[in-house]
Amino acid sequence: MPAAETAPAPAGMVPVPAPVGRTPAAGTVREALALSALAEDSAVMPNAAFERWFAERQAREGFTVRRIPLEAMDGWHFAPDTGDLRHDSGHFFAVEGLRVRTGDGGPGACWEQPVISQREIGVLGFLVAEFDGVWHFLVQAKTEPGNVNTVHLAPTVQATRSNLMGVHQGRGPHHAEHFVAPSAGRVLVDSLQSERGSWFLRKRNRHMVVVADPRDVAGHEDFCWLTLGQIRRLLGRDNLVSMEASSVLACLSYEVGEAAARDGYGAALLRSLAPAAPTVHSTAALVSAVNEIKARTRVEQQSIPLAEVGGGWRRADGALGRADGRYFGITGAEVWAASREVGHWAQPLLVPAPGGVCALLTRVVDGVLHVLLHARSEAGLLDVVELCPTVQCTPSNHLHRPERQRPRFLREVLGAPPSRVRYDVMVSEEGARFDRAENRYLVVEAPDDLGDVPDDYVWVSLAQAGELLGRGYFLNMQARTLLAALHAVW
Amino acid sequence: MPAAETAPAPAGMVPVPAPVGRTPAAGTVREALALSALAEDSAVMPNAAFERWFAERQAREGFTVRRIPLEAMDGWHFAPDTGDLRHDSGHFFAVEGLRVRTGDGGPGACWEQPVISQREIGVLGFLVAEFDGVWHFLVQAKTEPGNVNTVHLAPTVQATRSNLMGVHQGRGPHHAEHFVAPSAGRVLVDSLQSERGSWFLRKRNRHMVVVADPRDVAGHEDFCWLTLGQIRRLLGRDNLVSMEASSVLACLSYEVGEAAARDGYGAALLRSLAPAAPTVHSTAALVSAVNEIKARTRVEQQSIPLAEVGGGWRRADGALGRADGRYFGITGAEVWAASREVGHWAQPLLVPAPGGVCALLTRVVDGVLHVLLHARSEAGLLDVVELCPTVQCTPSNHLHRPERQRPRFLREVLGAPPSRVRYDVMVSEEGARFDRAENRYLVVEAPDDLGDVPDDYVWVSLAQAGELLGRGYFLNMQARTLLAALHAVW
Repeated sequence: MPAAETAPAPAGMVPVPAPVGRTPAAGTVREALALSALAEDSAVMPNAAFERWFAERQAREGFTVRRIPLEAMDGWHFAPDTGDLRHDSGHFFAVEGLRVRTGDGGPGACWEQPVISQREIGVLGFLVAEFDGVWHFLVQAKTEPGNVNTVHLAPTVQATRSNLMGVHQGRGPHHAEHFVAPSAGRVLVDSLQSERGSWFLRKRNRHMVVVADPRDVAGHEDFCWLTLGQIRRLLGRDNLVSMEASSVLACLSYEVGEAAARDGYGAALLRSLAPAAPTVHSTAALVSAVNEIKARTRVEQQSIPLAEVGGGWRRADGALGRADGRYFGITGAEVWAASREVGHWAQPLLVPAPGGVCALLTRVVDGVLHVLLHARSEAGLLDVVELCPTVQCTPSNHLHRPERQRPRFLREVLGAPPSRVRYDVMVSEEGARFDRAENRYLVVEAPDDLGDVPDDYVWVSLAQAGELLGRGYFLNMQARTLLAALHAVW
Repeated sequence: MPAAETAPAPAGMVPVPAPVGRTPAAGTVREALALSALAEDSAVMPNAAFERWFAERQAREGFTVRRIPLEAMDGWHFAPDTGDLRHDSGHFFAVEGLRVRTGDGGPGACWEQPVISQREIGVLGFLVAEFDGVWHFLVQAKTEPGNVNTVHLAPTVQATRSNLMGVHQGRGPHHAEHFVAPSAGRVLVDSLQSERGSWFLRKRNRHMVVVADPRDVAGHEDFCWLTLGQIRRLLGRDNLVSMEASSVLACLSYEVGEAAARDGYGAALLRSLAPAAPTVHSTAALVSAVNEIKARTRVEQQSIPLAEVGGGWRRADGALGRADGRYFGITGAEVWAASREVGHWAQPLLVPAPGGVCALLTRVVDGVLHVLLHARSEAGLLDVVELCPTVQCTPSNHLHRPERQRPRFLREVLGAPPSRVRYDVMVSEEGARFDRAENRYLVVEAPDDLGDVPDDYVWVSLAQAGELLGRGYFLNMQARTLLAALHAVW
């Protein structure tokens, strides 16, 4: 690794009004982010213009999706020896079998399930550039076959590693070149984070935010520059900002003075962003608590042939699923996309049981907002346990169980009076892998009489959550989505 | 998790001369550690008394080990369906098969090997207590069947989780009760770190240092209290301090003023412990570099039946190994131990190819010592890549290769003039799993004309190494051993 840390901004090719490609000084990054978060509109892409731009993308013809039997998917096959569902090229992803054994010994201590295997690290990356003294993020209007509402606001780049490296052969997604070998001084975020642990096996994504000189960023009709404040505003709308975008945004650390808050709750939230704010637990104690749950939770992940997956899973009517309709299914899709380089393809899509709920309970302690996170296992997580939202479940998966075995705090979340519900937005899963998978994301003030919580739940300030995010593999995808969402409510 | 962070020191049962069980204030921990590191002798266990005590333990009769065929091991069997070598109880550990596929595509891109599977988290823990105003660490004189020199200095506790939890039933190793649920204010170190990645599959150990009230720690003839300074002195001796002990000690962060250094090299080393010392790379850039290598290095770990492991591996003459003698073998051992609760047992031991070399090249930049770490994969690592020593290899494994394919920097290490060799000690692997496995550990000043290093090598200050250690899974076992060893040379 060469020793030079800070590369000079490359010389611009095209003069633009307020072009600033400055490499940020370490101390100014948090201030620049705060400034961007406070900018709720921008001359670069005014909110009204954004609405028109986005509506045009949504109205655009050219994406047709049809469900087809898995066996009818062109380019895919069930491997004869294992029954795994694979692409003929060996690339992309595969559906394999997973056997999970937990050490608890009770019922549910061993199960089997299909799982998506994609061993390659993906990159989720935002480009940032300064216009008129304010940092803007390059968002992409992204169309995927399974998207609810067709188009989502996604990060600048969302690609597998090998896809990204296509730039060396003149291919690769738009703007990929900025993420291939960015100089260290331009990288604001670079951390590995887990994928959705219930559905992917040990998959991780590299979350990146890279500062660019706007003169080096080619314009494209499906990309636009927005401030953090503009994105914050959009986080309050159903099925608009993708979980991938939220996940990356959650990794940004900055503080905003509490004067910007709209009410007392917002002020407590903004105080919680400050690293010096008093907290219920020290960060070391949080790490210890997670280590303790990891040590206690023995989860053995064993890859098995898809054909061997039992326990209610079966292939029927051209799809993979369960007779009881629980958890999820895998279906085939045929896609026609006018705007893509490859205009017609088939692929499997994962269809989760509908009605998922992800929620954070919050509480203000010493004037500082804390969120209640749950240290729990997910079948496919790399290190077994991460901090998850207070509630993360599909209630219908649990209806057959007695009340006391249903997910903890679900009643407190769904039964909260409207005045305590601070965020209630439908968020949908990534449509390149999931078919119309909507979940309800909530932030709810905990009831005053909540009392002590079990030892696998911890109260965490937002600055602490940021610190843990910096370490990687500490907060799961759904928790990251909710942490980003909190910025919509101050 | 209950909110109380700081438990009062429990009331003592027996009055002792200088009993101090104070919970350390956060700011004073580093100072207390520095004070302990500077104390090269102690009235609690004077160095001369330690030598006698340790020699007695080494001279003690009662540990006999005999190699036996794997098939003859009482209590172990080869599972009929997989050929995996397992204990009849299903506990302890197993020898399974591992298929590794790397994305590079070249030769060596796919191989199979036996691997030790032990899914449970182990605890490696030191108790610390204050005597006469100085922190002392409770070390254990530990006898294991495969130990070189029979007895090693080990952490206070070295146990699997379920072993540790035996305290609830009145069993469990000595002092285990201090590590089961320590109050947060008493925990100095609590981080998950990788096991030896070439031989274990995704195994991790919880590294802990816990402050105790000395009045609560029962005396035992195989345990004694030493200062960090006394342990530092012992790190310079062959096959004495165990890698497990070093690995935990490496996780302690503290600074010592450079006045304590014996020469200019020592002063540069002590300056490197300060978080504010200038560094070649920012820590964020180091993390980015590791992420980049992780993204580039596709390693797929597939568990396979031991019976299917090919590529030169075979069972012959009652052992598992290779005809070319490379890498390692697995042999059976029968053990008689007079001092153990269970006095007679059989177990497999791993026998690495002899002559391993682990070395750090160091360089002083701006007056601050930096060590050259190598971001590389090991077959069984949880997240595929960690920072390893500059050189980590068994030269005999590579003799069949042309010079340019041999491990990088091996020549610089082995050919260094004696004046540049700062540490040269034989360190042996843990004798509960490994049979008489000695490796040579070196710290060598890099030649002045070393020049730029490839981009999978990074120069890291000691404070940065400490910061990365705090995150877990960033530095491998051998690198941690060398980082601890550096404290023997200032």
